[in-house]
Amino acid sequence: METLSLHTDLYEINMAYAFFKDGIHTKKAVFEVYYRNNPFQNGYAVFAGLERVVEYLSKFIFNEDDINYLRSLHYSEDFLGYLKDLRFSGNIKACREGEVVFAIEPLLIIEADLAQAQLIETSILNIVNFQTLIATKASRIKHLVPHNALLEFGARRAQEIDAALWGARASYIAGFDATSLVAAGRKFNIPIAGTHAHSFVQVYQDEELAFRKYAKHHHDCTFLVDTYDSLASGIPNAIKVAQDFDPLKNRFCAIRIDSGDLAYQSKEARKMLDAAGFYDTKIVVSNDLDEDTIASLILEQAKIDSYGIGTKLITAYNQPALGGVYKLVAIEEQGILKPVIKISDNVEKITNPGLKKVYRVINNKTKKAEGDYMICHDEVINTQKPLRMFNERTPLEYKEFDNYYIKDLHQTIYQNGKLVYDLPNIEEIRSYHQENINLLWDEHKRYKYPAKYYVNFSEKLFNIKHDLIKKYQK
Amino acid sequence: METLSLHTDLYEINMAYAFFKDGIHTKKAVFEVYYRNNPFQNGYAVFAGLERVVEYLSKFIFNEDDINYLRSLHYSEDFLGYLKDLRFSGNIKACREGEVVFAIEPLLIIEADLAQAQLIETSILNIVNFQTLIATKASRIKHLVPHNALLEFGARRAQEIDAALWGARASYIAGFDATSLVAAGRKFNIPIAGTHAHSFVQVYQDEELAFRKYAKHHHDCTFLVDTYDSLASGIPNAIKVAQDFDPLKNRFCAIRIDSGDLAYQSKEARKMLDAAGFYDTKIVVSNDLDEDTIASLILEQAKIDSYGIGTKLITAYNQPALGGVYKLVAIEEQGILKPVIKISDNVEKITNPGLKKVYRVINNKTKKAEGDYMICHDEVINTQKPLRMFNERTPLEYKEFDNYYIKDLHQTIYQNGKLVYDLPNIEEIRSYHQENINLLWDEHKRYKYPAKYYVNFSEKLFNIKHDLIKKYQK
Repeated sequence: METLSLHTDLYEINMAYAFFKDGIHTKKAVFEVYYRNNPFQNGYAVFAGLERVVEYLSKFIFNEDDINYLRSLHYSEDFLGYLKDLRFSGNIKACREGEVVFAIEPLLIIEADLAQAQLIETSILNIVNFQTLIATKASRIKHLVPHNALLEFGARRAQEIDAALWGARASYIAGFDATSLVAAGRKFNIPIAGTHAHSFVQVYQDEELAFRKYAKHHHDCTFLVDTYDSLASGIPNAIKVAQDFDPLKNRFCAIRIDSGDLAYQSKEARKMLDAAGFYDTKIVVSNDLDEDTIASLILEQAKIDSYGIGTKLITAYNQPALGGVYKLVAIEEQGILKPVIKISDNVEKITNPGLKKVYRVINNKTKKAEGDYMICHDEVINTQKPLRMFNERTPLEYKEFDNYYIKDLHQTIYQNGKLVYDLPNIEEIRSYHQENINLLWDEHKRYKYPAKYYVNFSEKLFNIKHDLIKKYQK
Repeated sequence: METLSLHTDLYEINMAYAFFKDGIHTKKAVFEVYYRNNPFQNGYAVFAGLERVVEYLSKFIFNEDDINYLRSLHYSEDFLGYLKDLRFSGNIKACREGEVVFAIEPLLIIEADLAQAQLIETSILNIVNFQTLIATKASRIKHLVPHNALLEFGARRAQEIDAALWGARASYIAGFDATSLVAAGRKFNIPIAGTHAHSFVQVYQDEELAFRKYAKHHHDCTFLVDTYDSLASGIPNAIKVAQDFDPLKNRFCAIRIDSGDLAYQSKEARKMLDAAGFYDTKIVVSNDLDEDTIASLILEQAKIDSYGIGTKLITAYNQPALGGVYKLVAIEEQGILKPVIKISDNVEKITNPGLKKVYRVINNKTKKAEGDYMICHDEVINTQKPLRMFNERTPLEYKEFDNYYIKDLHQTIYQNGKLVYDLPNIEEIRSYHQENINLLWDEHKRYKYPAKYYVNFSEKLFNIKHDLIKKYQK
């Protein structure tokens, strides 16, 4: 069996080794995964990666090969023996995949033996950072064109094979309609899309002939029309071929334009298709698209039904890393989890101590989220009472709500190492995202300059943090 | 066995299907992999990914699961039968990994049955695009600081697991000295590096104690000194602990600074270490480094021995996609490979037709490369005669050489589906890159505004291209 235990930074193993030798490796510790700023200056992010984290933890096993390699690095036999028998035995709480999340909120909370929690850091960050990034990018695009079909075409430009696969899934969660990647279609049971490339036309060296050959062997036809010249050759040839279609055998689904001025060509294409009576034939465009080019196409009133988006989505081109971190927030002392803090000159980098809970506070009348509320693990919200929320940075400003309901952002995923969470299927995750994005006011979803959504602190949490800061400042 | 045949875009399968049904799937075709512009406005790129392409092709098998999935998509049984027995049976020529390459040069040349060549397009691009990108980024950084140790620390920010793994390898090929990723160390037999995180200090809640604990269990000590305050606390504590070292048991290898003003802190750190007699203790820095921040540190005469580089290397942050393409350049017609061209309004996007060879032309006196020379597959260079080279865009300007030797940029990797190439080991690849980067004049290696290195055309190739363009313009 493939194991993934060595997909970790060496320092994790070196720390685990020192903890083991020092006899504190089973001390309980709490780590949180979070990021400090929403990516792409977006108003929110979309959590994704949990299913892959579960897959990873099932392969968090040190097999004989793994142990032998570590032996070659001169770790002691008692430590290797410990690793050999190691299985993840801690607790994990996490957001649901597809959840709308915000900076500083814990996406995962890992409460485990210190050494274990440390050993799994690298892979968890790797997985969550990437998938959350891509889901967020996809959600941004979806918000711009909610009524157009969105196709993920990035496999050839993705950063290696896993990125193509899991990036396709993340895009689908956030509202894309299909991927070009066949392996993703199979593994995740998501729709796949694709017809032919320019090379298909080149092979026949005759565009009309190539379209006829394609149609002879495929019922649904989307013709790529820009191999030579979309308006002068591709679209007329596509129409000519489609006019000969037997409707029992073929459907002229769409034309695809992959280069040149997409706004102008799409408008001309629409006229040509309509003039030939192909009102239902769609126009698909592609070519290095992202939010900015799509916004520009909308402003130009381009006649586009569907967007194929590759490079800029699958690599999150304008910000290819989320920058999520994994920070210690509590450590066992005399049997009790004690909150800890990491101080920094940069206020943003000071950690939020302790085991916490996060609730989304939703207005009963508007059904819109009014803010998130982060509290200590032992606090309880009484929704029958008014709730007073304030933001940590502006503690003197507060909002009070009296007609609201709350939603716990976290689910228990692992309890004492046992997976206790029923992983939802991909359609459930996708619906969940859609429901939850609808809870946000549109102002938070603007693709540029979104209104800030606040993650508020309870007074108790605020005081614990400030007391710890003062203690360190002494 | 894991297969990778479905790691392909659906359109590849749809094209293969139409070719199969049309009876032309075994027609020979030649495709080239190349990119159009050097990434990062660099003067060159570093080819990487070949070993992974070989791994991929060994898994280019449609097993029962794969076939069943395709059956669910309603492909016909005769086509599924064809796929079931399919193994790659074509020829591949490729550059050596670590080769210095330039825009428009074929990195791989695939000569195979049309359907096969099409089916492997997506994965080959995925692999070569990513690894070449990362190797190039790493080479740029190496060129700036050739005498410093360079550590690849990107696993947690890489775009999923494969990217972390193969990105570590690509970095090592191009001159990095180690990676933090244990799995990469094992798989590729490359050095690994890492000591401890801030959390290690937080666990002990006492920096000096944490360093003592680390030293108790590790011979080589690199202390991360910025958990609280590098200059006021971290470095003094590191020195204090190291002063008590028994040289038989411990070595004070380095301190690492991961935040704040690296230039200032490194200079102060050097003074403090020297004052305590730790002249050989190195200073390692990290924190979102890339070429620009490193160049700035050099200009400020920072006292840095080693750089740990994560996010910006492993994602190629400022240009996270190479944009490599896979283009048809010849197709069999009456048993002969006939050059084809793809026309575009954008001159840069017009393909270079036909099966080609590329030579690097090296001055015998200076031992420096004077340019690359791209010729038709049936042309021969007589190195006893002067060589006249011109660039396609400026055909009236030419250079003539009379004392030179040439190097074929391509090796035969597959012959009729058989792997005939001995894959070099990682150290050979790394040395090969170093040798070849030394053939370039420094002017081409400047990290900003490099002098352009020319890829020249033979007259025959130039004429074939221009005749084909004229033919299409009619």
